[in-house]
Amino acid sequence: MNFPQGIYLDNNATTALAKEAKALMEPFLGEQYGNPNSLHRFGTETHTALSNAIDEIYKGINASDRDDVIITSCATESNNWVLKGIYFDLLRFGEKNHIITTEVEHPAIRATCEFLEELGVEVTYLSPNQEGILCVEQVAEAITPKTGLISIMWANNETGLINPIEEIGKLARQKGILFHTDAVQAIGKIPVDVQKAQVDLLSFSAHKFHGPKGVGGLYIRDGIPLTPLFHGGEHMHGRRSGTLNVAGIVGMGEAMRLAVQYLEYENTELRALRDRLEDALLQIPDVLIIGDRRIRVPNTILCSIRGIEGEAMLWDLNKAGIAASTGSACASETLEANPVMVAIGADKELAHTAVRISLSRYNTKEEIEYTIEVFKHSIARLRQISSTYSS
Amino acid sequence: MNFPQGIYLDNNATTALAKEAKALMEPFLGEQYGNPNSLHRFGTETHTALSNAIDEIYKGINASDRDDVIITSCATESNNWVLKGIYFDLLRFGEKNHIITTEVEHPAIRATCEFLEELGVEVTYLSPNQEGILCVEQVAEAITPKTGLISIMWANNETGLINPIEEIGKLARQKGILFHTDAVQAIGKIPVDVQKAQVDLLSFSAHKFHGPKGVGGLYIRDGIPLTPLFHGGEHMHGRRSGTLNVAGIVGMGEAMRLAVQYLEYENTELRALRDRLEDALLQIPDVLIIGDRRIRVPNTILCSIRGIEGEAMLWDLNKAGIAASTGSACASETLEANPVMVAIGADKELAHTAVRISLSRYNTKEEIEYTIEVFKHSIARLRQISSTYSS
Repeated sequence: MNFPQGIYLDNNATTALAKEAKALMEPFLGEQYGNPNSLHRFGTETHTALSNAIDEIYKGINASDRDDVIITSCATESNNWVLKGIYFDLLRFGEKNHIITTEVEHPAIRATCEFLEELGVEVTYLSPNQEGILCVEQVAEAITPKTGLISIMWANNETGLINPIEEIGKLARQKGILFHTDAVQAIGKIPVDVQKAQVDLLSFSAHKFHGPKGVGGLYIRDGIPLTPLFHGGEHMHGRRSGTLNVAGIVGMGEAMRLAVQYLEYENTELRALRDRLEDALLQIPDVLIIGDRRIRVPNTILCSIRGIEGEAMLWDLNKAGIAASTGSACASETLEANPVMVAIGADKELAHTAVRISLSRYNTKEEIEYTIEVFKHSIARLRQISSTYSS
Repeated sequence: MNFPQGIYLDNNATTALAKEAKALMEPFLGEQYGNPNSLHRFGTETHTALSNAIDEIYKGINASDRDDVIITSCATESNNWVLKGIYFDLLRFGEKNHIITTEVEHPAIRATCEFLEELGVEVTYLSPNQEGILCVEQVAEAITPKTGLISIMWANNETGLINPIEEIGKLARQKGILFHTDAVQAIGKIPVDVQKAQVDLLSFSAHKFHGPKGVGGLYIRDGIPLTPLFHGGEHMHGRRSGTLNVAGIVGMGEAMRLAVQYLEYENTELRALRDRLEDALLQIPDVLIIGDRRIRVPNTILCSIRGIEGEAMLWDLNKAGIAASTGSACASETLEANPVMVAIGADKELAHTAVRISLSRYNTKEEIEYTIEVFKHSIARLRQISSTYSS
């Protein structure tokens, strides 16, 4: 093929670091290695770049100056911090001991909720409706006088389906309940405005929007207390200790700037590329696409190809130089049925045949046309040797 | 002066990233951006470098194959994880609810212990003896039937003084008490052997030994349970979730390899440079060096210059292009008296006049000779204008 680097269509797992972000990081992996907390020149010479990066992050999610946006090492840290912090602040005393979340959250939410259940917290795991999303009525019905936190992801990592975060935020604010959203799969794909959505806490991770791995953040609305996950020195207003990862933060700031700059592109050009691929897949018999594309982030397709195990499809794509996924990379070693498809009621065979394709602004029309041809040939070939498929 | 990059003598705050480590990181900040958990080529092409890095880290601390060495984002994470993990595993049930630590730990230990005290844990904070270190007899005396954990740093970040970790490890093992050491300031400076020292848990941070910021680790001896700080997916044997920071881990592995390779140099050539500077400082009247150099890591000097505020000295050095510290960078914004000097019984004036000088293998003889001249001139000038000093 004519794509020596391969064709990367697994951008919901991780993304290529933007060259612009890498360029800004370079000095801080070289001669500007000071600790920002040091008072001498090596320390202070990092401050302008750090401050610019933090500004871009505030702007990117429309945080106000009074809010805190705290740098973490990843969204898994941010998600653990929210749930455990609120446990220590509120839930452990018992008066409010109930969390509302969903069955299709990232494992960092799901596993942490299960841990809190062991400590006596009650958790309601809502199932997506037939459209594959939560609706605000479900959330309203689940609220009890003991509900202390609602944690619902902005967009799902596997389906790309977008939850009605503004409606849920409005409900939570009306009811005086803390509202957290894991926005890892939303930033850089759709507009994310913490004020408009009335969220209290929002997690994000740089490597999902062309920033570096090992850095993320947590938005904390003005005045919201949150027991630290990392106790220690005075970094980040005393909310999160640890020497600042200067290169990482600078890279994330630039990645956020670019994410905002390319939002329009994502929602027009990239969306058109995704739709072209999706339409071509739908031309193939017995291929099912999960969820209405109008309520999906513009880069994602979760499809089921009847008669072909997701794993088998993935390997065939890989041999052709195309990287896709059977679902979340975070659970890919278990080879279990795709949990989102199970949750939205797909039958077991369908759930085992899931393939996730997630594009980025670096994909080209040529790559997509090649991918379509590979899918056509691979599906035909694999169905010929399939024991479960007959057309 | 002839040192256009400045002279960096604050290596206990952070270190320059080794060029060799940066070179190995490069591909993973570029085209090899896959998520190691992904099954396709972009994921799997990261595995060899990751595996080599992890091997170097095991070798560097002499961990056995049965032990776990878990990658974290920094030693602050590792330290929080140990204390909070053991709280959930053991201390919260009350039968064992006592921690022994020291007054001079890093804030990540100190502040986390204070947090656990709010939850009902009892903590004994031992003071260093007149030599500035802990002795095993103090630890033995502090043990009660309720002691569940001993956490004592290997070497102090401010004085460089080395605690008798092997003796404490032997005692803890005999008594069946878990033993953790924060080895952040030991790795790359003195031999660190987890088996010989009989430690159960050991924290480290890459950026203190010429690795990148934003990555560290926790050694966990075979069979030791530890409730995760980051719940989530199946990364790191299920012990620590979050997408792997591939570049960071690869950089830390190479930094560890180099740290071991340069240990002999640190203990001969670098020690000689440090001693040359220390001897010259001792020629100046009313300059006090904290702690016997024979029980200090080879790169560190904590001195007190009577009549000169540590801050004033630091600024004079900074103007001459020399970066030093008044103590731990993690507390430098508070301008409080150096807590280690307070703990070891220095009077208040002495504690305010502390200057920490910490070398690395990148310092040269020429830099040290220049530094000696700057100290001589600055001390003379600042004492002339000092209101508290009369010779």
